[in-house]
Amino acid sequence: MADSTDTRIESDSMGDIAVPADRYWGAQTQRSLQNFRIGGERMPEPVVRALGIQKLAAARSNMALGVLDAKLGEAMCQAAQEVVDGKLTDHFPLVVWQTGSGTQSNMNANEVIAGRANEILSGQRGGKSPVHPNDHCNMGQSSNDTFPSVMHIASVETLTGTTLPKLRRLHAGLSEKAAAFDKIIKIGRTHLMDATPLTLGQEFSGYAKQVEYGIARIEGSLDRLMELAQGGTAVGTGLNAMEGFAEAFAEEVAKITGLPFRTAANKFEALAAHDAVVEASGALNTVSVSLMKIANDVRLLGSGPRCGLGELLLPANEPGSSIMPGKVNPTQAEAMTMVCAQVMGNHTTITVAGSNGHFELNVFKPVMVYNLVQSARLIGDAAESFLDNCIAGTEANEERIGTLMRESLMLVTALNPHIGYDNAAKVAKKAYTENTTLKQAAVELGLLTAEQFDAWVRPEEMIGPRKRS
Amino acid sequence: MADSTDTRIESDSMGDIAVPADRYWGAQTQRSLQNFRIGGERMPEPVVRALGIQKLAAARSNMALGVLDAKLGEAMCQAAQEVVDGKLTDHFPLVVWQTGSGTQSNMNANEVIAGRANEILSGQRGGKSPVHPNDHCNMGQSSNDTFPSVMHIASVETLTGTTLPKLRRLHAGLSEKAAAFDKIIKIGRTHLMDATPLTLGQEFSGYAKQVEYGIARIEGSLDRLMELAQGGTAVGTGLNAMEGFAEAFAEEVAKITGLPFRTAANKFEALAAHDAVVEASGALNTVSVSLMKIANDVRLLGSGPRCGLGELLLPANEPGSSIMPGKVNPTQAEAMTMVCAQVMGNHTTITVAGSNGHFELNVFKPVMVYNLVQSARLIGDAAESFLDNCIAGTEANEERIGTLMRESLMLVTALNPHIGYDNAAKVAKKAYTENTTLKQAAVELGLLTAEQFDAWVRPEEMIGPRKRS
Amino acid sequence: MADSTDTRIESDSMGDIAVPADRYWGAQTQRSLQNFRIGGERMPEPVVRALGIQKLAAARSNMALGVLDAKLGEAMCQAAQEVVDGKLTDHFPLVVWQTGSGTQSNMNANEVIAGRANEILSGQRGGKSPVHPNDHCNMGQSSNDTFPSVMHIASVETLTGTTLPKLRRLHAGLSEKAAAFDKIIKIGRTHLMDATPLTLGQEFSGYAKQVEYGIARIEGSLDRLMELAQGGTAVGTGLNAMEGFAEAFAEEVAKITGLPFRTAANKFEALAAHDAVVEASGALNTVSVSLMKIANDVRLLGSGPRCGLGELLLPANEPGSSIMPGKVNPTQAEAMTMVCAQVMGNHTTITVAGSNGHFELNVFKPVMVYNLVQSARLIGDAAESFLDNCIAGTEANEERIGTLMRESLMLVTALNPHIGYDNAAKVAKKAYTENTTLKQAAVELGLLTAEQFDAWVRPEEMIGPRKRS
Amino acid sequence: MADSTDTRIESDSMGDIAVPADRYWGAQTQRSLQNFRIGGERMPEPVVRALGIQKLAAARSNMALGVLDAKLGEAMCQAAQEVVDGKLTDHFPLVVWQTGSGTQSNMNANEVIAGRANEILSGQRGGKSPVHPNDHCNMGQSSNDTFPSVMHIASVETLTGTTLPKLRRLHAGLSEKAAAFDKIIKIGRTHLMDATPLTLGQEFSGYAKQVEYGIARIEGSLDRLMELAQGGTAVGTGLNAMEGFAEAFAEEVAKITGLPFRTAANKFEALAAHDAVVEASGALNTVSVSLMKIANDVRLLGSGPRCGLGELLLPANEPGSSIMPGKVNPTQAEAMTMVCAQVMGNHTTITVAGSNGHFELNVFKPVMVYNLVQSARLIGDAAESFLDNCIAGTEANEERIGTLMRESLMLVTALNPHIGYDNAAKVAKKAYTENTTLKQAAVELGLLTAEQFDAWVRPEEMIGPRKRS
Repeated sequence: MADSTDTRIESDSMGDIAVPADRYWGAQTQRSLQNFRIGGERMPEPVVRALGIQKLAAARSNMALGVLDAKLGEAMCQAAQEVVDGKLTDHFPLVVWQTGSGTQSNMNANEVIAGRANEILSGQRGGKSPVHPNDHCNMGQSSNDTFPSVMHIASVETLTGTTLPKLRRLHAGLSEKAAAFDKIIKIGRTHLMDATPLTLGQEFSGYAKQVEYGIARIEGSLDRLMELAQGGTAVGTGLNAMEGFAEAFAEEVAKITGLPFRTAANKFEALAAHDAVVEASGALNTVSVSLMKIANDVRLLGSGPRCGLGELLLPANEPGSSIMPGKVNPTQAEAMTMVCAQVMGNHTTITVAGSNGHFELNVFKPVMVYNLVQSARLIGDAAESFLDNCIAGTEANEERIGTLMRESLMLVTALNPHIGYDNAAKVAKKAYTENTTLKQAAVELGLLTAEQFDAWVRPEEMIGPRKRS
Repeated sequence: MADSTDTRIESDSMGDIAVPADRYWGAQTQRSLQNFRIGGERMPEPVVRALGIQKLAAARSNMALGVLDAKLGEAMCQAAQEVVDGKLTDHFPLVVWQTGSGTQSNMNANEVIAGRANEILSGQRGGKSPVHPNDHCNMGQSSNDTFPSVMHIASVETLTGTTLPKLRRLHAGLSEKAAAFDKIIKIGRTHLMDATPLTLGQEFSGYAKQVEYGIARIEGSLDRLMELAQGGTAVGTGLNAMEGFAEAFAEEVAKITGLPFRTAANKFEALAAHDAVVEASGALNTVSVSLMKIANDVRLLGSGPRCGLGELLLPANEPGSSIMPGKVNPTQAEAMTMVCAQVMGNHTTITVAGSNGHFELNVFKPVMVYNLVQSARLIGDAAESFLDNCIAGTEANEERIGTLMRESLMLVTALNPHIGYDNAAKVAKKAYTENTTLKQAAVELGLLTAEQFDAWVRPEEMIGPRKRS
Repeated sequence: MADSTDTRIESDSMGDIAVPADRYWGAQTQRSLQNFRIGGERMPEPVVRALGIQKLAAARSNMALGVLDAKLGEAMCQAAQEVVDGKLTDHFPLVVWQTGSGTQSNMNANEVIAGRANEILSGQRGGKSPVHPNDHCNMGQSSNDTFPSVMHIASVETLTGTTLPKLRRLHAGLSEKAAAFDKIIKIGRTHLMDATPLTLGQEFSGYAKQVEYGIARIEGSLDRLMELAQGGTAVGTGLNAMEGFAEAFAEEVAKITGLPFRTAANKFEALAAHDAVVEASGALNTVSVSLMKIANDVRLLGSGPRCGLGELLLPANEPGSSIMPGKVNPTQAEAMTMVCAQVMGNHTTITVAGSNGHFELNVFKPVMVYNLVQSARLIGDAAESFLDNCIAGTEANEERIGTLMRESLMLVTALNPHIGYDNAAKVAKKAYTENTTLKQAAVELGLLTAEQFDAWVRPEEMIGPRKRS
Repeated sequence: MADSTDTRIESDSMGDIAVPADRYWGAQTQRSLQNFRIGGERMPEPVVRALGIQKLAAARSNMALGVLDAKLGEAMCQAAQEVVDGKLTDHFPLVVWQTGSGTQSNMNANEVIAGRANEILSGQRGGKSPVHPNDHCNMGQSSNDTFPSVMHIASVETLTGTTLPKLRRLHAGLSEKAAAFDKIIKIGRTHLMDATPLTLGQEFSGYAKQVEYGIARIEGSLDRLMELAQGGTAVGTGLNAMEGFAEAFAEEVAKITGLPFRTAANKFEALAAHDAVVEASGALNTVSVSLMKIANDVRLLGSGPRCGLGELLLPANEPGSSIMPGKVNPTQAEAMTMVCAQVMGNHTTITVAGSNGHFELNVFKPVMVYNLVQSARLIGDAAESFLDNCIAGTEANEERIGTLMRESLMLVTALNPHIGYDNAAKVAKKAYTENTTLKQAAVELGLLTAEQFDAWVRPEEMIGPRKRS
C-alpha cells in the first residue's frame, strides 16, 4: 500500500474522506476500515470472488434488460472479471466484523468496480463518474439481496470445488483399503473390549460408508443453497429491480459458475433467514462427526509401536517429538480431529447467528459465510491431507493382528447356538480366570469335545451370518 | 410397585439377585437399577415401544426362518405386542445413564418379554424357562444391532407421527395468514430500522416458506434413518444371525409400523456410527433456527400494546403477570423459543456423542436417542401449540400498521431511479432532521414537484419489481 | 387425580375455569396446563422446593415488615413448608415449556399455597379468600423477581447438596488411588504412542487434580448465584415491595437453607440477565470436559482383556453383552461420558437462552433452570456412581504394566543428555526396525557401552527431573 | 520470500530437505509446511510472541542452572527477543492444523532461534551448529510442556492486554451513561410488552453491572491460566529437565511479562488436560452472552427512526444502505453480536477439543489456543469499537421516551396496594378496550376518585420500593 500521506478524496452521503491513492475503494469502504477495528479476519477470498461474480452477472443482466448503458456496463464487466480472477483481492480490506448485512463489503465491491471502471473509461482511478457505485454497480440491487446471493455462491463454489472432490478422493482411498484388507481377520472391539472377529476390510468398509453418506449429505444440502436472493432488493419485494432481473441474474450466475443456481422461490425467506446455510453447516457437522470417529480409530489402531494396539502401521512423515528421539505420531489424524472440533464449533456459531434474524433481514451474514466457507475448506483440505499423508500409506500389521485375534476370549460367542449363552459364559469366565485357552476351558467343563470346538469356533466363519443348511 | 420385601430370585451369569415379585424384569435389569443411580431420566416411551416392535419383528422373523419354536414364539409375540401397546411400560424402569450400548434396556426387553411369555405359557412370572431372555428373545441378535434399530424406529415414529404432522399444520396456518394478510401494506424493517414497504402477507409467506423447507429438511433426513442395523449382531458381521434374518426383520418392522424401513447397506457403519441420528438432529436444529426467528418476529410485531410496535394483535390466553394487572404476554412464542434453545443444545449433545464412537461400536446410544426423541417431540408439540394458541388467533392491527407505514422515510427509495441515490439521501436526511414529510423536503430541495412525488412514491407500487414499460 | 368430572370452579382476571377438585391449584395453573401441551418435562423438584422456600421467606418477611396479617401469614407459612417438604409436589403439574418468565409456576405456587392455606383457615380448599394468591402469596413480589430467586435457590441447593459433595468423594477416591499406585512405573503415552515412563500414581494424580480444580471452579461460580433478585418486583425497581423487603427476604432464605444468600447488588441485571446461571453452567461444562477425559482414559487403560491395553482391571458389575458370553464392559465410564455429553449440550442451551433476553426481562428462565439443575444433578450422581462402581474397585494389572513398560523404545529419551537427540533417534530407529532392544541397538551403533546403558536408562529414575549434582 | 529455487539444505532425523534460503526455519518446519496443506489459518501472533518468551525464559533458566553455555545462550536470547518483538513473525509460517501437540510450532521456534543464533555467532544462517534446535533451544524441554506454557502465556497476555482493558473502558462508558440518564423515566418492558416504569439510567446500570461481573469472571479464570506446564517435559515427570528448572522458568516468564505466572502444581494435569483454557473460554462465553443482550437492547431501543421504539439515538457513522438513501443502521451492535456468536462457537470447539485428550497428552492444543486467543481479541476489540462508535455517542430521545411512558397501561400496577390486583386488572382492561386513559377507566369504574388516581399513580414514585410510613 502506498504511503498513507498519498491519498485522494472520495465522498458519500456523509461527506468527504481520504482514501489511499493506490486503492480502488471509496468512501464507504474507508469508513468501515476506520469504524470496525475488530480482529483481523478479512472477508474470505471465496466471498470476494463471489462478489465479482455477482457484480458481473448483475451488470450483464441490467444491460440485457436495457437499463444499463452498454459502454459503462462493459467497463464494469471488465472490472468485475478482474475481481473474479483474484487480481483485485488486495482492494477488499474489510473484516468480517462489520455491518451484519455485509453492506460494507457490497459497497466495497461497488466502489472497487466503479473505481476501476472509471479508470478504464477515463484514466482516472476511483470516483463516481461516469460509473457510480450505487446507481450503476448496485443498479436494481440492495446489499440485502446481493450479500445473500454472494453467500450462496461462495459456499456452493467451495463445497463443490474443494469439499466434495476431496471427500470423494478420501472415499475412494478408504474403499481401496477396504478391498485390500478384506482377507485380514482381526479381533473386533466393542466398548473398547475384545469382541467377535471381523475383517480389517469390513472395518474400513464402515469408514468408507460413513464418508459416502457424508458426501450425499453435503450434496443434499446444495439444493437450497442454489437459490439466489437477488431480485429481492431491500426487503424481498424487488423494489427498483426490473421485472425479470432476478431470473436473468440467476441464469448469468449459472453460466459463469457452471452450477445450477436459480432464483429463490421466496425472496422474503431468502433475505430474512439463512436456513440454507445452517442446513449446509449441519451437513458438514455430520461429516465432522464421521471423520472424527474414523481418525480416532485409525490412531488408536496404529497406537504403539510396542505398548499400544499396533494393528495398523501409519506412515512416518516427520519426527514426532522434540524430546523423544525416534517417536512417530499420528499427526494427520490429529490435524483432522482438530478440524472436526473447529467445524462443530463453527456450526454452533452459524446456528446462533441464523436464529437471530429480525423481520426482513438477518444481520449475521458475514459471520455465517465466514464460518461456512472455513468449515467447507477445512473439511476438504483435511480429508485430502489425511488421505495422502496417512490413509494411502497405511498398512496392516498382520502378524500383530493375527496374534491378538487368536487370543480373544470372545470367539466363545460361536458356541451360543450349540451350548447356549449361559454355558458359553462359563467357558469364557473359566478361560479368563485361569488364563487358559477357550478350548481347554470348554473341554474341562465337559461341555463339548475338542473336535467340536475346532469345528464350531472358526474365525473365518465368524465374519458373516449363519448359513442356512 | 409391590412392597420391596416381596421379591423373587432371578439369575444371570453373575449369580442370583432379588427382583420385585410383581415385575416382569429379571437379573440384568435389576443390576442396572442398582448400579446406575444417576438422574431420573428414564428411557423415553417411544424407545420402549420400539423395543416391543423390535422383539416382535425378531420373533416373527426367527419363526419364519425356522429357528424359533412356534409355541414359544407366539407367546413372545403376545408379550412383545403388549410392550408395543404400552401395557408394560412400568416394567421398563431403567435410566438413560446406563451402559452406552443400551444393552441393559435390550436385556430389560428380553427379560420382560421372557418373563411375561413364561407367565402366559406356565402361569409363572419371570424366569428363563421355557422362554430364555438371551437364547430366545435375543435369538440371532445382539444389543449392538438391536439398540440401533430401536433408535431408528423410535426416531422415525416420532418424527413422522408427531413432528412432521404438527409442522405441516403450522405451515398451513402460516400460509393461511399469508393469504389473509396479502393486501395489508406495512413498513419493512431491516437492521430493525425502517425500510421499504411490503405486505404483511409477504412477511408471513417468508415464515411459511421457512417451515415448508424445514419439513423438507426433516423428510430428507428420514431416508438414512430408515436403515436398520439389525442382522449385524455383535460387530456388524452378523455372526449367529441366520442368513436372511436382517432382511426379514426389516420387512416385519416395515409391516408393523407402516413405514419403509430397510436393512442397512453396511452393518459396520450402522453399529459403529450414528451419523443418521446426527443428521436428523441437524435437520431439527435448522428447524429450531427457523422457528426461533418466526417466534421472535411474532412477539416483536405484537409488542405493546402502547409502547411497542403493535402491528399484530396476539390472542390473550391467560393473565400475563402476577404483579401487573391486565398484562398479556406472548407466552406461546416464549415456549417456542425455549424449545428451540433446547433443541440446539440437544444437537450439541448428539454431535459430541456421535463423534466419540470407537471401533465397532458407538457407546453413546441411549443419550443420542433420548435427545433426538426429545427434540422431535418438542418441536412438534411446540409447533402445534404455537399454531393453535397464537398464530391462528393473530390479527393485524391495520390502523397501527397504516400509520407507521405512511410515516416512514424509507419510501424515499422509490425516488432512486428518478433523482439518483445521492439526491434521494438528501431528501431523507432533510425530512429526518427537520421532522417533515418526504414530500415537503423533496419539493423544498427543488428536486421534483409535488405531483411527481405523488406519482413516484406510491407504497402500493413499492411491493414488487419495476414493471417493464 | 380424581375423576375429571369431579371439579370445582376457580377464577382469574380472564374468568372462570374448572379445576380438579382434589388439587390445590387454581385458574392460572389450569390455563397453563391447557395452553401448553408440549413435551412432558415438568418443572424439576428442586425448583418446586425452591418455590416453597421463596414463598415461606416472603411471607415471613412481609409479616415482619407489618404488611401481612399474621393469621393469614401463619397459614401461608404452614402451606409453604409443606411445599418445601415435598408433600405437595403432585400439585405442581406444569411443564418447563410455558411462559418464559416462569409466571405460571409462580402462580402455581401462589395458588397452591393460597388453596392450602384457605383449607387450613376455612376448611375449604382453593379459592382466593381469606388468602388471595396475588394479594397475599405474591405480596410485594412479581414473578420477575420471584422466579430468578427460585432459579438461584434451586441451583445452589443442587450444586452444594449433590454436585459438590459427590465430586469431593470422587476426588478423594482418585487421590487414594494415586497414593496406592505410586510405586507402579508404567509406560507413558502421548499422541497415543509410547512415550517415557511415569508412575500409575502420577497418572491418577492428574485426574485427582482435574477434579480438585473442577470443585474449585464450581465453588467459584456459587458467589454470584448467591445473589437473589427478590425485591426487584416487575422490572427491577422494587415497585410495590416494601423498603427492606429485599434484604429481609435474603436473610430468611439464608436461614432456611443454611446457605449465604444475599440480595442482588443490581436488581435490573438480576431480572434481565441470568449470566450467573450461564457462568455456573460453564463451570459444569469444564467439569464435564475433565470427567470425559478421565473416564476415557480409564476405559482405554482397562481395555482388553487380551487385545487391548489391559493396564487396569475394572470391576465387573454386570454381564456386558446380550450375545457375547462372559463379556465385561466399562459401563460406568460410558454412563459418565454420556452424562458429560449431556452437560455440554445443556450448556449450549443455557448459552443460547441466556443471550436472548430483552430489556427488563430474560424470558428463557424455565429452560435455563431446568438444564442447570439437570446438569448439576447428573454430574454429581455420575461422579458418585463412577467412584463407587468403578474407580473404588479398580486395580492395577502390574504384570501387564511391567511388561509393556520394559518393551518401550521411548526409554531412549534418557540418553539425550549423554549422546544428543540425533544419536538417540538413531538408536530408537534401529531398535524399532530390527525389532531389538534399545541396549543392543545402542551398543551396536557404538554410541555407548552396555554398562553405560544400564547406568543411564533406569525407568525408576525417569519419573522426575534431573537431580542437580 | 525469496525465489523458491533459492534454497539451502537442512536436515532432521528423517533426512535432508530444502528450505527457502532467506528463512531461518529448518527441516521440521519445512516438513510441516508440506505435510499440512490445510486451510490458511496461521498460528496467531500472540502465540508466536509467546514462543519467543518461552524460549527466552528457558534459555535464561538453563544458563542460570549452569547447563547451557553462556555464549550460545546469549545468542539464543538475542534471537528469542527478536521473536518476542515481532521481528521474525514471517518465519513462523505454520498453520493451526498440524500435529495436535504443537510440536511443529515448537520446533519452528527452536529452528528459527537456532538459525538466527547461528547467524549471529557464525554469520551462517540456519543449521544446527553451534546452536542445535533440540539440544540447546529445546534443552530440558519437550513440546508437551512448552506448548501448554505458550498457550497460557499467549492467552493471559491477550486477556490482560486486550480483553480486560477494553471491557473496563466499556464498563466505564456504560456507567457514565447510567449516571447521565438517571433522571429519565421511561416505560419498562417485560416479555417485550409494556411494563412498569424505570429510569433509563437504571436500565443502563444493569448493562454496566453485567460487564462489571464479566470482567470479574475473566479475572477469576486467570488464576489457573497462570500455571505453567514447563518443567513437565514429555509426560509430566520432568525427565531431562534440571531440578529447579520449572520454578526458574516460571519466574523468568513472570519477569518478562510482568504477570504473576507460576509453575503448575501438577504437571500431569497441565499436559494432559487444558481445563484452564476451557474455563477461560467459559468466562468469555458468559461475557458474550452479556454483550449480546446489551447490544440487542441498544439496537432495539434505537430502532426507527419513525416506526420503531426510538428511545435511543445512536450515532450515524456511515451510510447504512446501498439502496435506501439516508438509512442509518446500528452496525456496531451488529458487529458485536456477530462477535458474540463467534465466541459461543469457539467455546464449543474448545469444549470438544478439551474433552478429547488421551493419557499423558491432550493433542488439540493448537486449535484450543487459536480459538481462545481469537475469542479474547474479538471480545476486547468489539467492546472498544462498540463503546467508541456507538455507546459514547448514544443519546436519549427524551420526547419520545416521555410520550411512551405516559401512555403505558402498566402504570396501573401502582394501584395494587390500594384497590387490589383484580380491580386493577379491570381498570387496565377497560382502558385498553376502550382506548382511554387509566384514570378515566378507574374513575368510571368507581374504584377511586380522580384525586386518588393522581396521588397514587406517579411514575416518579414508581421507580423504587414502597417507602415505610
